Amino acid sequence: MGNNKGRVVWINGEFVPESEAKVSIYDSALMFGDMVFEMTRSFNKKQFKLREHLERLYASIKYVHIPIEMTIEEMERHVYETIEANEPFFADDDEHRIMIDVSRGILSIYQGILGSHNGPNVIIADFPLRWTVAGMGELYNTGINAVITSQRAIPAQLLEPKVKNRSRLHYLMANIEVSKYEGKNNWALLLDPDGLVAEGTGDNFFIVKNNRIMTPEPRNILRGISREYIFELCNQLSMECVETNIEPYDVITADEAFMTGTPFCLLPVTSLNSTPIGSGEFGRITLKLLDTWSKNVDTDIVRQIKNWDLEKDSYRKSGPTPYSFK
Amino acid sequence: MGNNKGRVVWINGEFVPESEAKVSIYDSALMFGDMVFEMTRSFNKKQFKLREHLERLYASIKYVHIPIEMTIEEMERHVYETIEANEPFFADDDEHRIMIDVSRGILSIYQGILGSHNGPNVIIADFPLRWTVAGMGELYNTGINAVITSQRAIPAQLLEPKVKNRSRLHYLMANIEVSKYEGKNNWALLLDPDGLVAEGTGDNFFIVKNNRIMTPEPRNILRGISREYIFELCNQLSMECVETNIEPYDVITADEAFMTGTPFCLLPVTSLNSTPIGSGEFGRITLKLLDTWSKNVDTDIVRQIKNWDLEKDSYRKSGPTPYSFK
Amino acid sequence: MGNNKGRVVWINGEFVPESEAKVSIYDSALMFGDMVFEMTRSFNKKQFKLREHLERLYASIKYVHIPIEMTIEEMERHVYETIEANEPFFADDDEHRIMIDVSRGILSIYQGILGSHNGPNVIIADFPLRWTVAGMGELYNTGINAVITSQRAIPAQLLEPKVKNRSRLHYLMANIEVSKYEGKNNWALLLDPDGLVAEGTGDNFFIVKNNRIMTPEPRNILRGISREYIFELCNQLSMECVETNIEPYDVITADEAFMTGTPFCLLPVTSLNSTPIGSGEFGRITLKLLDTWSKNVDTDIVRQIKNWDLEKDSYRKSGPTPYSFK
Amino acid sequence: MGNNKGRVVWINGEFVPESEAKVSIYDSALMFGDMVFEMTRSFNKKQFKLREHLERLYASIKYVHIPIEMTIEEMERHVYETIEANEPFFADDDEHRIMIDVSRGILSIYQGILGSHNGPNVIIADFPLRWTVAGMGELYNTGINAVITSQRAIPAQLLEPKVKNRSRLHYLMANIEVSKYEGKNNWALLLDPDGLVAEGTGDNFFIVKNNRIMTPEPRNILRGISREYIFELCNQLSMECVETNIEPYDVITADEAFMTGTPFCLLPVTSLNSTPIGSGEFGRITLKLLDTWSKNVDTDIVRQIKNWDLEKDSYRKSGPTPYSFK
Amino acid sequence: MGNNKGRVVWINGEFVPESEAKVSIYDSALMFGDMVFEMTRSFNKKQFKLREHLERLYASIKYVHIPIEMTIEEMERHVYETIEANEPFFADDDEHRIMIDVSRGILSIYQGILGSHNGPNVIIADFPLRWTVAGMGELYNTGINAVITSQRAIPAQLLEPKVKNRSRLHYLMANIEVSKYEGKNNWALLLDPDGLVAEGTGDNFFIVKNNRIMTPEPRNILRGISREYIFELCNQLSMECVETNIEPYDVITADEAFMTGTPFCLLPVTSLNSTPIGSGEFGRITLKLLDTWSKNVDTDIVRQIKNWDLEKDSYRKSGPTPYSFK
Amino acid sequence: MGNNKGRVVWINGEFVPESEAKVSIYDSALMFGDMVFEMTRSFNKKQFKLREHLERLYASIKYVHIPIEMTIEEMERHVYETIEANEPFFADDDEHRIMIDVSRGILSIYQGILGSHNGPNVIIADFPLRWTVAGMGELYNTGINAVITSQRAIPAQLLEPKVKNRSRLHYLMANIEVSKYEGKNNWALLLDPDGLVAEGTGDNFFIVKNNRIMTPEPRNILRGISREYIFELCNQLSMECVETNIEPYDVITADEAFMTGTPFCLLPVTSLNSTPIGSGEFGRITLKLLDTWSKNVDTDIVRQIKNWDLEKDSYRKSGPTPYSFK
Repeated sequence: MGNNKGRVVWINGEFVPESEAKVSIYDSALMFGDMVFEMTRSFNKKQFKLREHLERLYASIKYVHIPIEMTIEEMERHVYETIEANEPFFADDDEHRIMIDVSRGILSIYQGILGSHNGPNVIIADFPLRWTVAGMGELYNTGINAVITSQRAIPAQLLEPKVKNRSRLHYLMANIEVSKYEGKNNWALLLDPDGLVAEGTGDNFFIVKNNRIMTPEPRNILRGISREYIFELCNQLSMECVETNIEPYDVITADEAFMTGTPFCLLPVTSLNSTPIGSGEFGRITLKLLDTWSKNVDTDIVRQIKNWDLEKDSYRKSGPTPYSFK
Repeated sequence: MGNNKGRVVWINGEFVPESEAKVSIYDSALMFGDMVFEMTRSFNKKQFKLREHLERLYASIKYVHIPIEMTIEEMERHVYETIEANEPFFADDDEHRIMIDVSRGILSIYQGILGSHNGPNVIIADFPLRWTVAGMGELYNTGINAVITSQRAIPAQLLEPKVKNRSRLHYLMANIEVSKYEGKNNWALLLDPDGLVAEGTGDNFFIVKNNRIMTPEPRNILRGISREYIFELCNQLSMECVETNIEPYDVITADEAFMTGTPFCLLPVTSLNSTPIGSGEFGRITLKLLDTWSKNVDTDIVRQIKNWDLEKDSYRKSGPTPYSFK
Repeated sequence: MGNNKGRVVWINGEFVPESEAKVSIYDSALMFGDMVFEMTRSFNKKQFKLREHLERLYASIKYVHIPIEMTIEEMERHVYETIEANEPFFADDDEHRIMIDVSRGILSIYQGILGSHNGPNVIIADFPLRWTVAGMGELYNTGINAVITSQRAIPAQLLEPKVKNRSRLHYLMANIEVSKYEGKNNWALLLDPDGLVAEGTGDNFFIVKNNRIMTPEPRNILRGISREYIFELCNQLSMECVETNIEPYDVITADEAFMTGTPFCLLPVTSLNSTPIGSGEFGRITLKLLDTWSKNVDTDIVRQIKNWDLEKDSYRKSGPTPYSFK
Repeated sequence: MGNNKGRVVWINGEFVPESEAKVSIYDSALMFGDMVFEMTRSFNKKQFKLREHLERLYASIKYVHIPIEMTIEEMERHVYETIEANEPFFADDDEHRIMIDVSRGILSIYQGILGSHNGPNVIIADFPLRWTVAGMGELYNTGINAVITSQRAIPAQLLEPKVKNRSRLHYLMANIEVSKYEGKNNWALLLDPDGLVAEGTGDNFFIVKNNRIMTPEPRNILRGISREYIFELCNQLSMECVETNIEPYDVITADEAFMTGTPFCLLPVTSLNSTPIGSGEFGRITLKLLDTWSKNVDTDIVRQIKNWDLEKDSYRKSGPTPYSFK
Repeated sequence: MGNNKGRVVWINGEFVPESEAKVSIYDSALMFGDMVFEMTRSFNKKQFKLREHLERLYASIKYVHIPIEMTIEEMERHVYETIEANEPFFADDDEHRIMIDVSRGILSIYQGILGSHNGPNVIIADFPLRWTVAGMGELYNTGINAVITSQRAIPAQLLEPKVKNRSRLHYLMANIEVSKYEGKNNWALLLDPDGLVAEGTGDNFFIVKNNRIMTPEPRNILRGISREYIFELCNQLSMECVETNIEPYDVITADEAFMTGTPFCLLPVTSLNSTPIGSGEFGRITLKLLDTWSKNVDTDIVRQIKNWDLEKDSYRKSGPTPYSFK
Repeated sequence: MGNNKGRVVWINGEFVPESEAKVSIYDSALMFGDMVFEMTRSFNKKQFKLREHLERLYASIKYVHIPIEMTIEEMERHVYETIEANEPFFADDDEHRIMIDVSRGILSIYQGILGSHNGPNVIIADFPLRWTVAGMGELYNTGINAVITSQRAIPAQLLEPKVKNRSRLHYLMANIEVSKYEGKNNWALLLDPDGLVAEGTGDNFFIVKNNRIMTPEPRNILRGISREYIFELCNQLSMECVETNIEPYDVITADEAFMTGTPFCLLPVTSLNSTPIGSGEFGRITLKLLDTWSKNVDTDIVRQIKNWDLEKDSYRKSGPTPYSFK
C-alpha cells in the first residue's frame, strides 16, 4: 500500500498537501454545486483515455460558462506534473486515480475580503485507485443486484447530466434509498421520468440479448468514457453494440447485463430487483468484453482489484460508493 | 464598513479565521452538492426568525439523512457564540448575516487518510449583511424586471427544493441565461415543468390583484422564511393572502408584484419580461407590507440598504447574485 | 372462530357453497380485469356505511357501463339475505365482511356454448372479517413503515382509480416491490406521476401537522368510505381536515400520519422509508380519531383485532395483503 | 361446426368440462387482474409459433413473480394433451385456439378454508378459432376504420403492456368509446401519452409508405407474435420493415395500413377516423404479406374465415371483440 | 328578420359594408393566427358586460404585445357608434352581437407595397345574434351530449387560452372529431393534458353536485364572461360556486351539468359520452340559474332563442358551431 | 426592383390586384387560424420543388378536412398562370415567391348573407423573393445566434406542426421573446416539451459533428422541403445525414450548425445563446452544402441575396421575420 503521507494536490498552480486541499465556503462550488470534474485511472501507471476525459471536461466547462483561461494542453501537462510529484508516495502496484475539479471560484460578493484566490479554481488531485475499488473484488463473483429506485434521474432539460457536475444530491438520495433494500451488492439503477433505464449513480448500464449489446440512448445520462470504450471493444470483436431505449422488461428478459465505470471498468449485473437476469451468472459476452479490455491494457483487471482487496485495507470503512466512476 | 480582518468562522467546535474556512475536496458537499444550509439576517443586530431558520435546517438534515448529533438548541447557542466572537469586527450599522452549512463530511473511502475531521461538518459563518445587498438600493426605486427563463425549476419529486440544499447548478444556469437579457435589474423567475410560476433563484414571488395577495403553492419552491412572514404581516393588516397556482398571464394582469428574500426582505417587481405589471411602479400594497415590516423590526429597511450603497463599497464587484436569500 | 364450513355465496340469485363461488374463465372479469366491487364490514354484526358502499358501487357500474338491472335497493336486500344465511356459521365475536363483485359476464363470443349464465354477474360473499385483519394487531403498537415504491399510481385519465375495479396488477407489483424492503411492517405508499402522495394499495393516507389533518386531493385515488368517515369524525371533534397536495417532504416533516381502510379502520404510520414521522409513535390525534370511532360504533376496534390475533389462526398463512380495504 | 359439448379444459393437471372451467372469487386473478395468459391458433390443426407464445408467457410469469414450478416443456406437453383430448369434438375444418391462463392463486388470507387448490393456477382451454373470428370475413373486403380514442394506452412504466396480463379494463373502456362512433367496422387505435400510435385493443398496427413497412417501437405495446412474424415475412420478401415512432399524421399520409393479431393474422386498415388511408382499399403490399403468410401455412386465411362466416353461427351474438388476439 | 343589406363594419376608423370587411392576406392575423378578439351580445338591445369584455380584450392585447394606441374608452365609444350605424338594419327583436378583432397588421416585410393600412387593425362588426344561436332552441329541451375528444386542450404554457386569440385550429379539429360521433346535439368537451376537464370549444363547463356548483380551475381555459356571471348569480342566490379540478368521473357522478357562453348564456348538459348525468334532464339548479339570469336582464332567454328558430331562417345552413361564444 | 404595382393574386379562379387580396372577417381562417398554406421560391425564375410543396399542401388539406375539389394538377397549373400574369411586373433579377393559402371559407352561420364566396378559398399570391430575404445578406457573414426560448414548441398531439397551418401565435410569442435578447442576429430555437431541439419559427435546424450531419426527428416539427433537400445533397456528396434527438448540449458541443428555409436555403448558425458553436464561424461542411446547392440550381445563393441587400430597399422596415420559410 502506498504511503498516504506525502501526496500533494495541484491547486491553481501550486502543490499543497492533500490534507490542505480545500475549497472556501464562499466558493460557487459550495454555494451552488457549481463545479465540473473528471476522474481518471491508469493501467500500469499509464493514464487511460486522459485526452477523452479532458475533452469532456472542457465541454462541461463551456456548457456552464466557467471563464477558464487554461488550455487543454496546459491542463494535460499539469495532470502529468501532479502524477510525477505523487508517484514516490505510491506503491508499485498502485494506479493513479486523477480527480480534476474546476469551479467558478468565490462568489463576487465575497471577493476581495478573504485574501483568497479570485477567479476559477482548478484542482488536480491524485490518489491510489485502490481506495475507490476497495471491496469490489467480490462483485466479480456475485455480480451486482441492480435496484430500481423511486428516485428518478433528472432529465437533461432540467439539469444536464452530460455535464459532469457536482449538483448530484439526487444520486445520493438514490443511494440512500437502495441502502434500505434487503441483502447486499445492491446498486441503484435510475429510470428517467419516461421510465426508461438511464444509468447508475456512478456507472453506465448495458444489456446483452441474442448476442446484441444495448445501452440507453445518450440523453439522460453521463456519456461515460468507459461506456464509449465498450463501443470500441465491440468494434474490435465484431459484435453489435447499439444505443436504444431500454425498459425494466428488457432487463428482466435479457441474457446478460453489466455496468461500466472508470475505476472498475466493467462489473456484471446478475439480477434486477433480486430477479435473476439470464442465468444469474457472469455472462459469457460480458466476460469476453472484460477479458479483451484486460488484454488491451495489459492488466488483469479483476485480479488487480481482488489483490487490493486481500490487503488489510484499514482506511476502507464501508461498501462501495459508486458515484463518479464513469 | 466593518473590518474584514478578524472575523472567524465556527467549524465543528472551533473558531478559524474566515480565510481558512474551507471544505476538503473529498467532502460529500463537493462531491455531490450534498450540503444543506441556512442564511439569516439581523435587525439592529438581533437575529430575525433564527428559530424558524434552524427548524427548517433540521428538516433538511432529516430529509437528506445527515447523521448529525448536535441538537437544535446547541446549534442555536453556537450561532450566538459566533456572533459574539465577530461583533467586534462589525461596524455599528452592520447587520449579522449568518450562514450555517451542514455536510455529511468526507466520503468514507477517503476517511482516515488525511488527518481530517470525520463525520458531518457544521460550519457557522457570520459576515456583514451589506455584502449581500450591495447595489440593491436602486431596486427599491426601479423595481425588478422578472425574466422567465427557458430553464425550468426542477420539481420536488426529482430534487426537493423545500430542502435548502447546495445542488443548485440549475439556478446558476438560469442566472446566466438572464444575464443575456437586454437591460438591467433583470432577475430570473422560474416556471415549474407545468408552466406554473415557482420562484426566483434566491427569492419567493408574490402578486397582488384586487387587494388579494397571492403566492405559488408551496410545492416546487423553497418555503422561504420571509415568505412565511408575509402571511404574518397580512394577518396583522387584515389582508387576504393565499397560496394558489400562478401563471405568467396572472402576473401580466396583476396590479402589483414583489419578491421576498432574507437579506432585502421585499423588493418590488415592476415588470415581467419588460412588460409593466400594473402601473409599472412600486405598488401601494407592496409598500404597505414593507413599511409594516420596517416598523415591526424597528429598522427602515430601504434606507439601511441605500445607505450601505452610498459608501464606496470596494469589495462589491458586480450586480446582485440573488441565490440563497430566502 | 366461525365454522368455515357452511358459508354460502349469493350468485345471480342463488346461494352456492363458498368453495363453488367461481367465475368462468371466459368471463370479462378474467379476460379484462373487468369487474367492479365493494368490501364492507360490520360492527357488532351491523353493517357500517353499507349504503355508501353501494352508492360507490353503482357509480363504478355506471362508469364502466355494465348493463345491470338490479336496483340499489335490491342489492342491499340481497346483502342482508346473504348475511342472514351465513350468520349461523359465524362465531359470536365475528364481524361480517361482505364482498360484492359485479362483472359484465361471459364475453359474447363465448356465450351460448357453456350452459352458463349470460349477462352481468352479481356475486355477494360474506366471510369473517378476522381473516382480513389477522396479524394486524401488532401494527397498532409498532405502526406501519410506509415505503414509497418506484411503481407509481396510474393516474385517473389512464385508469380511473375512483372506480373500484379489479385491474390492479400494478398494486400487486408495488406490494412485491415492498416485500424486498428490509425489516417488516412495510406497506406500500404510491406517488402519482406528479410525485404527489396518492394512496396505499389498500388504504388511504393522512398526515397531521400542527393539529391540521390532511389527505391527498381526491384525484388519483380511490375515495375510501373510511376516508370519508375521517371527515365526519373531524367534524364531530371540531378539528380541521382538508384535501390538499401532499409530498414526501410533507410526510417527513409531519407530526403524525395514519392510513385508513375498511377492515382495520385506522392504523398509525410511524415512519416513511424507515425515517420516523414526528415522535415515531402512535400520534395523539390519530389516537383520538380512533377512540372516537370506537365509541361511535360501540366497538373497541384495536382490542377486537388483537383478540382475533391471539387465537391460533390456522388459515392465516402470511402477512397482511392490504389491497381492497378501503 | 364442432360439437360444443364434450370439450374439456386442463386445470392444474386435470381435465374438467368447459362449463366448469372457473376460477375462485378469492383468486388473485379476480382480486387484482393478476393473471398472465396466451392465446394461440393452429393452421391445419398444427399450432403456429406455440414455442414463441410459451416463451412470452414465461417472460410474463417471471416479470410478475408468479412462483410456478412447471417447466416450459411441461407446459408445452400439456397443451398438446389438451388438444388431443378435444380434437374429437372439433369439426374437420376447425382450428384449435388455445388459451393458457396462469394466476397466482387464491390470496393467502383465504387459503385453507375452501378446500381449494392452493398455489398458482395453470389453465389450458381449447376452443374453435371460428368463435373468435366470427363476422370478421367482411373486414377483408371493407377494411377496418381505425378510431383514435380519448383513452390513452397506459405506458409501460405504470403497467407493463409487454406482459400479457389481464388488468386491461382500459382496453374495454376504449372499446366502449369506439362503440359510440358512427358507422361500423370501427376498431380502437390507442395513442400512448406522448401521442404516438401504440396498438389496438387486440392487435398491433402497421403502416406502409413508399414500400417501407413501419410499426411502432416496441415500448408501450404488447409485442405480438404475429407482429414478429411480419418481420419474418418482410425478410422472406426482401422488404424493409422498421420499428419507429408513428403519429396520426403518418397514418393519414401513409399508402396502406394494417393490423395483426393471432386469430385473423392480418386485416387491412383502410381509414383512420373515417379518413381514407391511401386509396382507401386493401393495399397491394398488405395483400402480398397476407398471401405469403397463407402460402407459408398452407391455408387460405381469408377464405377460411369467410367460410366460417357463411355458416349460420348461432352462438355468435355481436361484433368482434378484438382484445387478446395478438 | 333584419335586413342583411346595409350593415357596416367599423375598420380602423371607417365604416365599410359588411361584404367588404376583410383582412389582407399579408396580415399577421392570417399569417400567424395573430389576432385577439371579443364577441358580445345585448339584451333588449343593451350591451351586456361590455366593459368586462373590453378589459379582457385589453389584457389579451397586452399579453401578445400588439402596439395599439386606442384607449379602452375610445374602443367602447366606437362599439356604440357601430351599433348606432347598424340598428336601422336590425329587426325589432334582434340583439346586437358585436365582434371586435384586433390584429398586429400587415407583416413588416409586406408594408408599403399595397397601399394598405399599416399598424394594428381594429375591426368592429355587428350582426344579429340570431345567426349564432340558430338551431339551438331545441337544446334547451334535449340538453347537450358532451363528448370527450381525443384532442386535448393546449395547456397555457404552450398557448395561453386565457388570451382570446385566433390560433384555435385544435378547437376545429375537436369539432370535426365530434362530428363523427353517433347521434346529435354532441358538443366537444376538451380535457387538458392532465386529464382534467378544461372547456368546450366555445363554452365553459359546470357541474352541480349536492347543491354545490363547480367549474374547472381557471388555468387551461378561457375565463368566460358568462362563466364569471355564474359566480355573480350564485352570490345573488346564496349558492356555493367553486373552482376545482373536475374529472370525467366527477361529471358522470354529478347531479347536473351545464355549459355557458355569451350568445346562449347557459345550456343544460344532460349526458357525457351518451351516459346520462343525474336524471338526464334539465337540472333544477341549472334551471334556477337560467331563470334568474333571464329576470336580471329582463329577457326570457330561452323563449327568445326558440322564437328565432321558428322563423324560416334561410341563411342558416347547418348545426351550431360553438366556438367563440364565451 | 420589380414594379410593385400591377401584381395580381389568384383567388378562387380570378385575378385581383394584390391590394384587394383579402379574406372576410367571417372566414374560418380568421376565426380559428383554420388555414393551411405553402410558400415556395424560384431559382432563375424556375419554381423549385413545387410539386413537393403541393403534395405537402394536399396532405395538410386532408389532415384538417378542408373539402376542396381542385386537383393537385389544377393547383399546379394555377400557380403557373399566376406566375405568368405577374412576371411582367418582376425585375429581371427577381425570383417568384409563391404563397398558396387554402381556408375552409366563411363559417356556415355567416353564409348567404354577404354575397361572398361560399366554400373553401384558394389563394395564390406571387411576390418578389427579395422582400422576404431583405437584410439577410449579412447573416451569411455573421451567422445566426440561435436563442432557446422559454416558449416551447407545441407537440404534434396537441397541434400538428407537420400540417403547415396558420395557428402559430406561439411562434410569434417566441419571436417577441427573442427580441428582448441582447445583441442582434438572434433567431428563436424552440425546444419541444421533452427539451429536445424542435425547430426555429421559420426554419429547420441541423448540426454537424465529426462530419456527421444531424437534424431532429420529424416529430414535433414542420418537415421542411429544404430540410428534405439537405438529405438529397448529402446523398449527392456521400455524406451521412441522420434524424436523431438533439439537445442543447449536442449543439454546444457540435462542430457546426445551420438552419434551412425556402427563401434563404441555408444559413449558418454560429452560436447558441451567444456561446460559439465550434469555431464560431461559417462551418466547412455547411459551406460545402450551400455551394453544392448553388451549383445544382445554377444560382449563387449568397451573392443573390447580398445583391438584393445592396439596393435601397424602401419597403423593408425591420429585421427578418423568419416564420413560413420552410
